[in-house]
Amino acid sequence: MRISELSAATGVSVASIKYYLREGLLPEGERTSATQAAYGDVHVRRLGVIRALVDSGVGIAATRDVLAAIDAPGESINDLLGTAHGAVMPDVAAEADLTAAENVARRVGWTPGSCDEQVLAGLDKALRNLERADFDLSDEVLDAYASATQRIAAAELAGVPTTSPEAAVRYVVLGSVLMEPVLLALRRVAEQVASERRFGKGAG
Amino acid sequence: MRISELSAATGVSVASIKYYLREGLLPEGERTSATQAAYGDVHVRRLGVIRALVDSGVGIAATRDVLAAIDAPGESINDLLGTAHGAVMPDVAAEADLTAAENVARRVGWTPGSCDEQVLAGLDKALRNLERADFDLSDEVLDAYASATQRIAAAELAGVPTTSPEAAVRYVVLGSVLMEPVLLALRRVAEQVASERRFGKGAG
Repeated sequence: MRISELSAATGVSVASIKYYLREGLLPEGERTSATQAAYGDVHVRRLGVIRALVDSGVGIAATRDVLAAIDAPGESINDLLGTAHGAVMPDVAAEADLTAAENVARRVGWTPGSCDEQVLAGLDKALRNLERADFDLSDEVLDAYASATQRIAAAELAGVPTTSPEAAVRYVVLGSVLMEPVLLALRRVAEQVASERRFGKGAG
Repeated sequence: MRISELSAATGVSVASIKYYLREGLLPEGERTSATQAAYGDVHVRRLGVIRALVDSGVGIAATRDVLAAIDAPGESINDLLGTAHGAVMPDVAAEADLTAAENVARRVGWTPGSCDEQVLAGLDKALRNLERADFDLSDEVLDAYASATQRIAAAELAGVPTTSPEAAVRYVVLGSVLMEPVLLALRRVAEQVASERRFGKGAG
């Protein structure tokens, strides 16, 4: 199909498609003349992934990293997870002291070395921001978070498809990135539901 | 203390302090002369909260909303939660059809009306992005997310301080916002730990 048809099929504007082509997120179509190229299903599917990532707040550079991870089936699942996490994590300066994060990480069964330093640094930063705001995180709440994320990770890892390495890679990389907004949104729903139950609607 | 001392006490630059004053995030100090003002503990504490929010990726306008919610003890806990969620949620266009979100929300015990439409729209958008990327969310994983967020919300709500309305407001608003990065960071740690256990380090 032509670029205008690709646009119609996906709902993505021709200008955006050209931008993704220029940025190397979308592979070139097959040249049919000096000014035209033909696009196929692979472009339709790829555009769906790109739009889902960008719409989830993933920047263009991070989207490129995520797509590169999906396209690199030679890498180990661990390395792919690290790449996916690195792509969507806020930049965190390297920390000499990760004690706060390490103490909390032990609650999810972490042993030193089983987790990227960058990911631990992200946790450490989030915990330090609680301190700065004088927010007192109780052990009960922390344990709820720790066991909740452990259950989530276990369910996710149990679901890694075994049909093909490509399917596994896709599941791990996209799941790790695209489920973040789902998790935050579900927590907000759960909080409002629990709050209404405890405090009643609009009459706290 | 003077502004330079406030800066030294908090590690926040004088330029940033002046910016927060101009933006109305930080209350004015007590005028001591035409060009000087005196700041106190209330400013030190408020700067800690501001920096924690900004550092967590909350924008200036949303930070102002969050601070306003903390300063409005007259509001109900439900309304405050809604304000806090609204401040940190990505902008979501109003949706006519929230069926996907509503189906999933039922898993956390949601009944129509117990949750802001905006928050449901956020969940709906996150779910639609999974579809767009052709990511197949299994019922097992979805249930793990639903029960995990339900446990988290229950633990959080059980921990609302009863010492004073101000303490309750602060806990609900700051907890709702500042625990989001903690949740994402803990999931990343838990995923890497589970992945290493399942696939081994670097050789998946």
